Amino acid sequence: MDGYLERLRSGTLKLYSLEQSLPAKQAVAVRRAFIEEETGVSLHALGAYGISPERATRRNCENMIGAVQVPVGVAGPLRVRGEHVDREVWLPLATTEGALVASVNRGASVITRAGGAECRILADRMTRAPVFAARSVAHAAEVVRWVEGHLPELQEAADATTRHGRLVGADCSVAGTSVHVRLAFTTGDAMGMNMVTIASEAASAVIESATGARLVATSGNLCTDKKPAAVNAVAGRGRSVAAGVQLSGDLVHDVLKTDAASLVEVNTRKNLVGSARAGALGFNAHAANVVAALFIACGQDPAHVVEGSLAITTVEPVPGGVYVAVTLPALPLGTVGGGTAIETQAECLALLGVAGGGNPPGEHARAFAEIVAAGVLAGELSLLAALAARHLARAHATLGRG
Amino acid sequence: MDGYLERLRSGTLKLYSLEQSLPAKQAVAVRRAFIEEETGVSLHALGAYGISPERATRRNCENMIGAVQVPVGVAGPLRVRGEHVDREVWLPLATTEGALVASVNRGASVITRAGGAECRILADRMTRAPVFAARSVAHAAEVVRWVEGHLPELQEAADATTRHGRLVGADCSVAGTSVHVRLAFTTGDAMGMNMVTIASEAASAVIESATGARLVATSGNLCTDKKPAAVNAVAGRGRSVAAGVQLSGDLVHDVLKTDAASLVEVNTRKNLVGSARAGALGFNAHAANVVAALFIACGQDPAHVVEGSLAITTVEPVPGGVYVAVTLPALPLGTVGGGTAIETQAECLALLGVAGGGNPPGEHARAFAEIVAAGVLAGELSLLAALAARHLARAHATLGRG
Amino acid sequence: MDGYLERLRSGTLKLYSLEQSLPAKQAVAVRRAFIEEETGVSLHALGAYGISPERATRRNCENMIGAVQVPVGVAGPLRVRGEHVDREVWLPLATTEGALVASVNRGASVITRAGGAECRILADRMTRAPVFAARSVAHAAEVVRWVEGHLPELQEAADATTRHGRLVGADCSVAGTSVHVRLAFTTGDAMGMNMVTIASEAASAVIESATGARLVATSGNLCTDKKPAAVNAVAGRGRSVAAGVQLSGDLVHDVLKTDAASLVEVNTRKNLVGSARAGALGFNAHAANVVAALFIACGQDPAHVVEGSLAITTVEPVPGGVYVAVTLPALPLGTVGGGTAIETQAECLALLGVAGGGNPPGEHARAFAEIVAAGVLAGELSLLAALAARHLARAHATLGRG
Amino acid sequence: MDGYLERLRSGTLKLYSLEQSLPAKQAVAVRRAFIEEETGVSLHALGAYGISPERATRRNCENMIGAVQVPVGVAGPLRVRGEHVDREVWLPLATTEGALVASVNRGASVITRAGGAECRILADRMTRAPVFAARSVAHAAEVVRWVEGHLPELQEAADATTRHGRLVGADCSVAGTSVHVRLAFTTGDAMGMNMVTIASEAASAVIESATGARLVATSGNLCTDKKPAAVNAVAGRGRSVAAGVQLSGDLVHDVLKTDAASLVEVNTRKNLVGSARAGALGFNAHAANVVAALFIACGQDPAHVVEGSLAITTVEPVPGGVYVAVTLPALPLGTVGGGTAIETQAECLALLGVAGGGNPPGEHARAFAEIVAAGVLAGELSLLAALAARHLARAHATLGRG
Repeated sequence: MDGYLERLRSGTLKLYSLEQSLPAKQAVAVRRAFIEEETGVSLHALGAYGISPERATRRNCENMIGAVQVPVGVAGPLRVRGEHVDREVWLPLATTEGALVASVNRGASVITRAGGAECRILADRMTRAPVFAARSVAHAAEVVRWVEGHLPELQEAADATTRHGRLVGADCSVAGTSVHVRLAFTTGDAMGMNMVTIASEAASAVIESATGARLVATSGNLCTDKKPAAVNAVAGRGRSVAAGVQLSGDLVHDVLKTDAASLVEVNTRKNLVGSARAGALGFNAHAANVVAALFIACGQDPAHVVEGSLAITTVEPVPGGVYVAVTLPALPLGTVGGGTAIETQAECLALLGVAGGGNPPGEHARAFAEIVAAGVLAGELSLLAALAARHLARAHATLGRG
Repeated sequence: MDGYLERLRSGTLKLYSLEQSLPAKQAVAVRRAFIEEETGVSLHALGAYGISPERATRRNCENMIGAVQVPVGVAGPLRVRGEHVDREVWLPLATTEGALVASVNRGASVITRAGGAECRILADRMTRAPVFAARSVAHAAEVVRWVEGHLPELQEAADATTRHGRLVGADCSVAGTSVHVRLAFTTGDAMGMNMVTIASEAASAVIESATGARLVATSGNLCTDKKPAAVNAVAGRGRSVAAGVQLSGDLVHDVLKTDAASLVEVNTRKNLVGSARAGALGFNAHAANVVAALFIACGQDPAHVVEGSLAITTVEPVPGGVYVAVTLPALPLGTVGGGTAIETQAECLALLGVAGGGNPPGEHARAFAEIVAAGVLAGELSLLAALAARHLARAHATLGRG
Repeated sequence: MDGYLERLRSGTLKLYSLEQSLPAKQAVAVRRAFIEEETGVSLHALGAYGISPERATRRNCENMIGAVQVPVGVAGPLRVRGEHVDREVWLPLATTEGALVASVNRGASVITRAGGAECRILADRMTRAPVFAARSVAHAAEVVRWVEGHLPELQEAADATTRHGRLVGADCSVAGTSVHVRLAFTTGDAMGMNMVTIASEAASAVIESATGARLVATSGNLCTDKKPAAVNAVAGRGRSVAAGVQLSGDLVHDVLKTDAASLVEVNTRKNLVGSARAGALGFNAHAANVVAALFIACGQDPAHVVEGSLAITTVEPVPGGVYVAVTLPALPLGTVGGGTAIETQAECLALLGVAGGGNPPGEHARAFAEIVAAGVLAGELSLLAALAARHLARAHATLGRG
Repeated sequence: MDGYLERLRSGTLKLYSLEQSLPAKQAVAVRRAFIEEETGVSLHALGAYGISPERATRRNCENMIGAVQVPVGVAGPLRVRGEHVDREVWLPLATTEGALVASVNRGASVITRAGGAECRILADRMTRAPVFAARSVAHAAEVVRWVEGHLPELQEAADATTRHGRLVGADCSVAGTSVHVRLAFTTGDAMGMNMVTIASEAASAVIESATGARLVATSGNLCTDKKPAAVNAVAGRGRSVAAGVQLSGDLVHDVLKTDAASLVEVNTRKNLVGSARAGALGFNAHAANVVAALFIACGQDPAHVVEGSLAITTVEPVPGGVYVAVTLPALPLGTVGGGTAIETQAECLALLGVAGGGNPPGEHARAFAEIVAAGVLAGELSLLAALAARHLARAHATLGRG
C-alpha cells in the first residue's frame, strides 16, 4: 500500500486509476488511506462495508472509498391490490429521520384493515428531450413539422440502440429558435435514463441530418429530469401511478384517532389550498419522505425524489367514510440497472418480490411502482391524521431530534 | 430468538416493541429473522451492518432490520472560497449512479485550477407554516393584523421551547378563511425541522388564543417542506447559498473541451429557456444529483433534495472567459441531529471538517452549505461541458448502465 | 320612459327584461336612466355611443346601459412575413396607457427596416377539459383507458354539434378519482370557446354513458381558460405562434440606441433569470400590453390576455447582430364571433385585413395570430431597448402619469 | 386636411407629429384619413367617438385615430360590506362576451340576498424590481447586505420623486450575479406603476453608487408586472383583497339551483385539483372575466388582468350552508391616473362612487378593490353553480356565439 500512497502523493498515479492496477477491494482501501492521510480524518466506519466492491466500482461509483450505511426499518404488512402485485408486502424504508417508519407503519395498518390499497399504473414512459437550434422561427416550424411527420424514422434509429426500450412518442416545444423534442420511451424493467439517452442521441442525429437544425444538448430540460417541472405533472414521466383506499368512519376513528370531516379539511387547507398559495407543483403532505426511503433502500436514483414529490393527495367524503388517494404522475424507477444489484439493495427489492427483470418485461417495475404508490398513501394517511390530531410536534419530540 | 419469533408470530409481541425487551442489536436481529421467515427472503447483507444499532433504533429508524450500504466515492480536491470555509475539500458522494463522481471530479478540477469556488450564504432561516381556520374573511384579516403586530409575543412563546432556535419572522398568507403563517427561524447548526415544529406549535397556541382562529395543521404546506414550491425560491428556506467561479477561455478549452460561447448557449437553451417552457421551478442541469449524493453521505434528510433542486445555474460571458454560478435558494441542512451522528455519516461530515456543532453555533452548518454549493457548481460545470461536447450519452454508456 | 322607470322602481319590471318590451336603443336608454336615478350619477358619456345596440344587446352584453370608449392609436407600418399574411400592416391599439403605442411603433419601425417579422403558426387547437368523478382509482384508470381507445366515438358526438369545429385529441389527467379529459379542437376562424364547450358536453355524455363516471363540470380547469397555467405553455391553447427578426448591429445602434450584447444581457437577466426567480409562467417584458391593446381593439375576449402573457422572448447573438423572437404558446383569438362584429371592432379587424371568415376557413384567424405575434415582437424589442438605455422611467414621465 | 395628407404621404410630416401642428380633434381626423387612404378601409365608426381627444392624445394614446366602443352592462345591486365601502353598488361591466353580465348579475343577487359580500384589504403595495449586475456572487452578497441595511437611504431617494408614493420595503433575490431588488410602495389612490418606476430609478441610482453594482434594467421581472408569477401570489402586488359570503342551504337551492355539497365538490375538483394538475397559478373559475370587464369600464390597465387571474376561490361547508370566498393577492388598480379621467371611464368609476382621489388618499382605490373582489365573488358563485347544474354549454348557446 505504501508504494501506491507514495505515487498518489507524488501525482504519478491518479486517484481514479487505482482500479487499473489493483483488485477493487485494495484499490478502495488505498484510496481511503490516501484521503485519510490528506485530511487527517479516520474513515474506519466507511471502510467497514460489506457490499462487493467489484461491481460497485465498475458500475455505481468512481473513486470509491467505502460505503455509508443507512438504517432500514420495515413497515407493514401492507395490503396492495394492484394489477401487477396483489398481496401483502413489507416495505423496506432506509431512513435516518425518526418517526418516519412508525408513521408509514400506522398508515399501512389502517390500509390493510380497510382491505388494501387499490393501485393502478396510468402511464409508463421515460422521456428525454434534446434541444436543437434552428436558424429562425421559420426553420423552427419546419423542424416541428418534420418531426411530427416522421416518427417511424425516429423510432427506427432510436430502437436500434436498445433491446429493451421503444420510442413511442415525440412532442415538440418551440421557444424562438430553440426546438425541444420530448421523446418518450417504454423501458421494460429499467428506469431507463441511460438507454433513452443513447436512443435519443440516435434520434437526434436523424433530426439534425434531415432538418439542418443543430443539436445543442441531448437534454434540453424538457425531459424534465430531477428538476421540479409542470411538464412531468401534465404529461407524466417514468411510471404514472395512483393508489386509493376507502376508509369507514370507524377505522378513521379507531386507528387514526380523528374523523372524516377533519381529514377532508386538513387535506383541503394544507395539501390543496396551502400548496396552491405556495406556488407549488406538489400537492401532498410528505410523499418525498416515503419515496426517498424506498428509493434508497431499493437502489433507485435518489435524485428522482424530485419527480416523486409532484404527487397529489386527495381526500373526499363518501357515504360512511372517506376515499383517500395519492396520484404520482412521474415516478422514474426500475428493478434492473442503477443500484439494484448491490447486495443490500437487491435484498430490499427481493423483500418486495420485485428483484430483477419481470416476466413479461416491465412487470416487476410496474409492480414496484404500485407498491411505492401504496407506501406513499400510507405515509399521507398517517401524517394527515397526525396533523388533524395536532400531535405532529409531540410525535417528533418523542422519536427524533434535530 | 425462537421464543421471540413465536410471540411475534402469535401476535402477543408487537414487531415495534422488540427494543423494549432486548438490546438493540438483538432486537434488530430477531425482527430481521421474523421478516425473513414471513417473506422467505434472505436478508443477510442487510444484517451485515457496522453502525451502532443503539442510536439508530432510538433516534433514526423504527422497526430496524439492518442497513443498506451505499458506495461512497470522493471528488476533489475542490477549492472552496467561502466566508465559513476557505480551503480545499474532498467531497464524499454516496451514489449508485455511475459517472456522477467522475463528473463532479472533473468540475472540481477545473474550479480548483481556476482558483476556487467563491461561496456566499445569502440567507439562513428554517420555516414552518401552520394553517388556521378563521370564521370569515373579516376574521382572517384580523388574524393577519394581529400576527403582524405581535411578533414579540410569538417569539417569546416559540423561543421558550428551544435552546438553539430563534423566531425571526412571521409572514401571513390568506386564502379565504385559511390563514397560513410562515414562521422563520434561525436554527444554529441543526437543520432544525423538529425544533421549529415544536416552536411553531407554541406560537400557534398563542395565535389561537389571541385571535380565536382554529389551528388546523402545524404545517399548512406554505413552509414548504419537501414539495417543489415557488415560495421557497422566492423567500428562501434553510440556508440560501450561491457559488461562482470565473473561468478563462484557456481553462474552458483545455479542461472542459469546449468554449465559452458554447457553455453560454447550452445553459441558455437548456437551463433557462428549456426549464421555462417545462413550467419548471428549477433552472439547472442536475443539482439534485450532487445534493442527493452529499446529503445521503452526510446524514441529511434526503427528501430535502426537492428543495435543493430549485437551484438556478447561470453562465455569462465576461472578458476573457465565462462566469459560472449556481444559486440554491433553499438548502435545509445541518451538522447535528438527524442522521449526522451515525458512524459512517459522521465520518463524511468530518471529512469535510464540519462534523458536530460549530463555534459560534451555525458555523459548521454554514460551512457545509458553502461546500454543497461548490459541489453543485462542480457538477453543473461538468455536465454543461459534457452536453456542449455532445458526449453525455457516450459517457453514460461507458460508465453506467440502466 | 317614465312608465318603464316606474315599473322598474316598483319591481314589476326586471331590468334585464327591457329588451323584451322596447327596441334595443330605448331599452338601453331606459336602463341607463334608471341607473342614473338609483345612483345619482350622470352617465351621459356612456350613453353617447355609436355602435348598434341591437346586436350588442343580443350577442355581447346583457343589461346594456351604453358603451365605454377606448382610444385607438396606430403603430406601423409593420412588415409581417407569415404564411397567412405577408405584407405591411397598421396595428390598431386600444389603450389608455401613455407610451404604449409609441413603444410598439418604434419596434415596428426597426422590424420593418430589418425586412419584417417572420411569423409561424406552430399549433392550432382550442381546448376544453371536462372533469369526471370516478368511483375509485381503479375506475379512474378504466375511464382513461376507455377514452384513449375511443377517440372516434368522441369525435362523432362532438363534431355533430358544430359546423366549424373538429375534435382532434383527448388527453387524460388523473388526480385520485378526478379524471380530467382535455379535449382539443380546430375551430376555423372562431376563437371557439362556445363551440367547443357545446361539443365537449356532447363528448362528455358519451364518456359518462360508456364508463359510468359522473360529469362534475364541463370545465375542470385543465382547459385552462383564463387562468395562468403551465399546461397551456406545454401543450398549447388556441393558436400557438412565433415571430422573429434578425437585426444588424447597425439597426440596433441607429434605431434602438443600444447594442447587441446589451439586448442579450437585458433579456437574459430580466426575461429569463428574473422570471425564473419570480416563479413565473411568462418570460417576456410586456407581451400582455400588446395583446390587450389588440384584443380590445379587435373584439376579442380580453380575459384571454392571461394566456397571451405566457409568451417567451428570446434574444440570441448571431454573426453581425441579434436574432430576437417571441413565442406565444396560447393565443385564443378569432375573426368571427365574440365582439368581432361590433362596428368599431370590425373596422379594426378590417384595418388588418382579417375581418370575418377566411378562405379557406381558419385563414383569417391564423393571419390575425401572426399579426399579433409580430406586434408583440415589436413591443418586446422596443421595451428591451428602452430598458437597456435606462430610460423607461423618463419615457413614462414624459408621456404618461399615474 | 389635404395639405397634411400630402405631407404625410411624402414623409415630410411624421404621423405622430400631427398634434404639434393641429388641435387634437383635427390631428386625429387627419391621421385617420391617412390610414384609411393607406389601407383602403373605412374607419367611420372609430371616428365617431365622443371622448375628449385633447386629454387622450396627451395622456393615454399616441397616434390616435379614434376610439373603439365596448358595450357596458350593469350587474347589481350588489351589497358590499367592506371597510372602505359599505353599501349597494351597480357594477359597470364592459364586455363583448355574451352571458357574462347575466352571470355576474345572478351572483350579485344571491350575495345581496345573503346580506352582502364581506370584503377586506389584506395588503396594499405596488412593486417594481430593478435588476443589477454584480461582479461575482461575493459582490452580489455584498449588494444584498447593503440594501438590507440601508432602507432609509433608499426611502429618502425614492420618496423625493413623488408626492403620493412611499417606499415601504426592499426584498432582494439573487441568481448568480443578478441581484433583483423588489421595491414595495404605497401609492395612494393611484395604481402607481409610473410613480414607482420613477422612484425606483432614484433608489437604483443610490444602490449603484453605494455598491458599484450596475443597473441592468429598471424592471428585472421580479416586480412582476403583467406576467403570471408566483411571487405576486406569495408576496402580493397592488391591492391584496378578499371577499366572502355565507350562503344558507335554502339560498343555494332557490337561487343557484344546486346544493352545498355540489358547490364544494365542483370547486374542489375544478378550482383546486384541476388547477393543481394544470400547473396553474390561478385557482378560480373565471376571475379574469370580471376583472377585465370592470377594468376596461373603469379605465384601468387591462394587462393587469394577468395579476387578477391569480385569484383563489374557496368553498367550504359550514353548518347550514357554505362559505364561499375569493382571494385576490395582486390587484393593481387606481382611481386616478391611467385611463380614469376619460369621460366614459370616469362615469363608470363615479357609478361606483370611487372616482378621483379619496379622502384620506388611498380610500377610493381601496374601496374600488373591495368592489372588484365582491364582483369576482359574484362571478365565481354564478359559474360554479352553473357548472354544478351542467348547463354551462346551454347558457352559452342561448346568449352568445363563437
